[in-house]
Amino acid sequence: MGEFDLIERYFKRPERHTARVALGIGDDCALLQPAPGTQLAISCDMLVEGRHFVATMDPFKLGHKSLAVNLSDLAACGARPLAFTLALALPRADEAWLAPFAQGLLALADAHGCELIGGDTTQGPLNICITVFGEVPVVNGRSQALLRSGAQAGDDLYVSGNVGDARLALEVLRGSVSVPEAVFNAARMRLETPTPRVALGLALRGIANAAIDVSDGLLGDLGHILKQSGVGATVDVDIATTLVAAYAYSTGATGQFDINFSPDHWRRWALSGGDDYELLFTAPTSARQAVAAAAQSSQTTVTRIGQIDAEHGLRLVDAQGQPVSNRYASFDHFA
Amino acid sequence: MGEFDLIERYFKRPERHTARVALGIGDDCALLQPAPGTQLAISCDMLVEGRHFVATMDPFKLGHKSLAVNLSDLAACGARPLAFTLALALPRADEAWLAPFAQGLLALADAHGCELIGGDTTQGPLNICITVFGEVPVVNGRSQALLRSGAQAGDDLYVSGNVGDARLALEVLRGSVSVPEAVFNAARMRLETPTPRVALGLALRGIANAAIDVSDGLLGDLGHILKQSGVGATVDVDIATTLVAAYAYSTGATGQFDINFSPDHWRRWALSGGDDYELLFTAPTSARQAVAAAAQSSQTTVTRIGQIDAEHGLRLVDAQGQPVSNRYASFDHFA
Repeated sequence: MGEFDLIERYFKRPERHTARVALGIGDDCALLQPAPGTQLAISCDMLVEGRHFVATMDPFKLGHKSLAVNLSDLAACGARPLAFTLALALPRADEAWLAPFAQGLLALADAHGCELIGGDTTQGPLNICITVFGEVPVVNGRSQALLRSGAQAGDDLYVSGNVGDARLALEVLRGSVSVPEAVFNAARMRLETPTPRVALGLALRGIANAAIDVSDGLLGDLGHILKQSGVGATVDVDIATTLVAAYAYSTGATGQFDINFSPDHWRRWALSGGDDYELLFTAPTSARQAVAAAAQSSQTTVTRIGQIDAEHGLRLVDAQGQPVSNRYASFDHFA
Repeated sequence: MGEFDLIERYFKRPERHTARVALGIGDDCALLQPAPGTQLAISCDMLVEGRHFVATMDPFKLGHKSLAVNLSDLAACGARPLAFTLALALPRADEAWLAPFAQGLLALADAHGCELIGGDTTQGPLNICITVFGEVPVVNGRSQALLRSGAQAGDDLYVSGNVGDARLALEVLRGSVSVPEAVFNAARMRLETPTPRVALGLALRGIANAAIDVSDGLLGDLGHILKQSGVGATVDVDIATTLVAAYAYSTGATGQFDINFSPDHWRRWALSGGDDYELLFTAPTSARQAVAAAAQSSQTTVTRIGQIDAEHGLRLVDAQGQPVSNRYASFDHFA
């Protein structure tokens, strides 16, 4: 199977002519027309040097996750998904891998009305590079995008869903802890097929002051908001930590865990686990009802875990309000 | 050096607030505002599984070429470069590699006013994935983009610059032929630091009926125009072939070549060599003066190498108009 056959076979959809996607797969560039009078031409190429590599992850889940992590960035921006490009380096054109990969990818794309508009395929060690495009309205000259830089002293700090589940699954896969199978299966879904919080991101436009998605760990990603907003924060680690514990409890699995588990494990995974793809955001205290309404309309749980301070730095406290030392470093690809 | 340091150090530029780039590096998404009233949010992530890999190519040239091949796609679309994202998988954060890579990349970006607005870095086998954004005007509801699908029977067929030089350099590097050093050095520049024909692409808006950039080989890429336009073509292989030969002659190197050289070598490299990044385009015969003016205004040579036929299929002829059999297959990554 050749490169063009591969694109034709697995990634080309029936053409959908919309006002915005003026031209999709099959030319040098894709053309987006976000507004009358102009278009954006978009192209994606990949250069690879490498050796053969056999992927071990279920390709359907990998397809889902590849797009999910990108949609999560749109969600954190309050952007409505529009389209994406896919650059794919593959050791070989393997149908048994490609078909489920494309299915997983396109199922999530369809669920979000996000159209694959172009990309590149090449031979090389397995590498998936997606660029996604979303739309944000500009109202009275002001962008509705949720930025990292908008947090204000006094804001409440929230996180969506549960954090730490992906890390729990990873630790089980690594053999460092064991949990009941039902808990592992549910945690593994969070690791392998995360749900991008697009609906929540859209619902928070005009409500949240700042947002980021939790990909490298809650505290590490919070650090970006604090730095770019020029503020500090106080986080209740036990409220944040119960998020992952609550998940296990809700499955009725409490008390069945491996002896290696300790409160410090929970805290570490919830605060620095990474790969959660939840939204971490701030909003004025006056917006608590609006945040609750956004959570409800988007069918996403949201938990208030602390507040933004004028004083710089990050302060951790426990359920009793006592200071907790911060030994929960974030993930860094090159550390 | 950590991931964020790496971005900060090598890829972050002084902020340039423009009407179009509303937000660049440093948030979950970059925001483009191609027109009042709307923005495009853009994000790029990379997932990698692989092993370490040592790049052998000069990183400055690799940086140049990584962006050049993308700008070439914009050129083939008649799009004005606006911005790009960079996703980079690296075996390790190696300053001796990163600094010249970034220099080569950003020098070309600056030359085209194309701003790096975001991306991703991750650890893995060396892989560079760029997504570039360009702008195409829409005049009276009609896009000015140059497409592969616009060729008309009777159109002249043109190619810019020289084709085959990159392949000549590759064959020398492989040791299969030898040429005088001056010829090799010039050909190697074409292979390693190709010039994207952006100015020509812009100048051809409203003149050319169809265009593509020659990345996989002249005849292979012509095949895309023919298929998508539902037409055929006749190509004078000797005119096309003299493009690369003419280059060697112009350096005064004629007669000094290795005995392995034959007219068939020239033809093969010119017609299927690949990696040329020239523009292959069609235009009505009535537009010959306009094409010449576009070539002149963009300071790019352009050669008429054949014509578009209503009859499907590709016909090759020699300088005497005699048929030549087509044994010049195009490059395919998975063939």
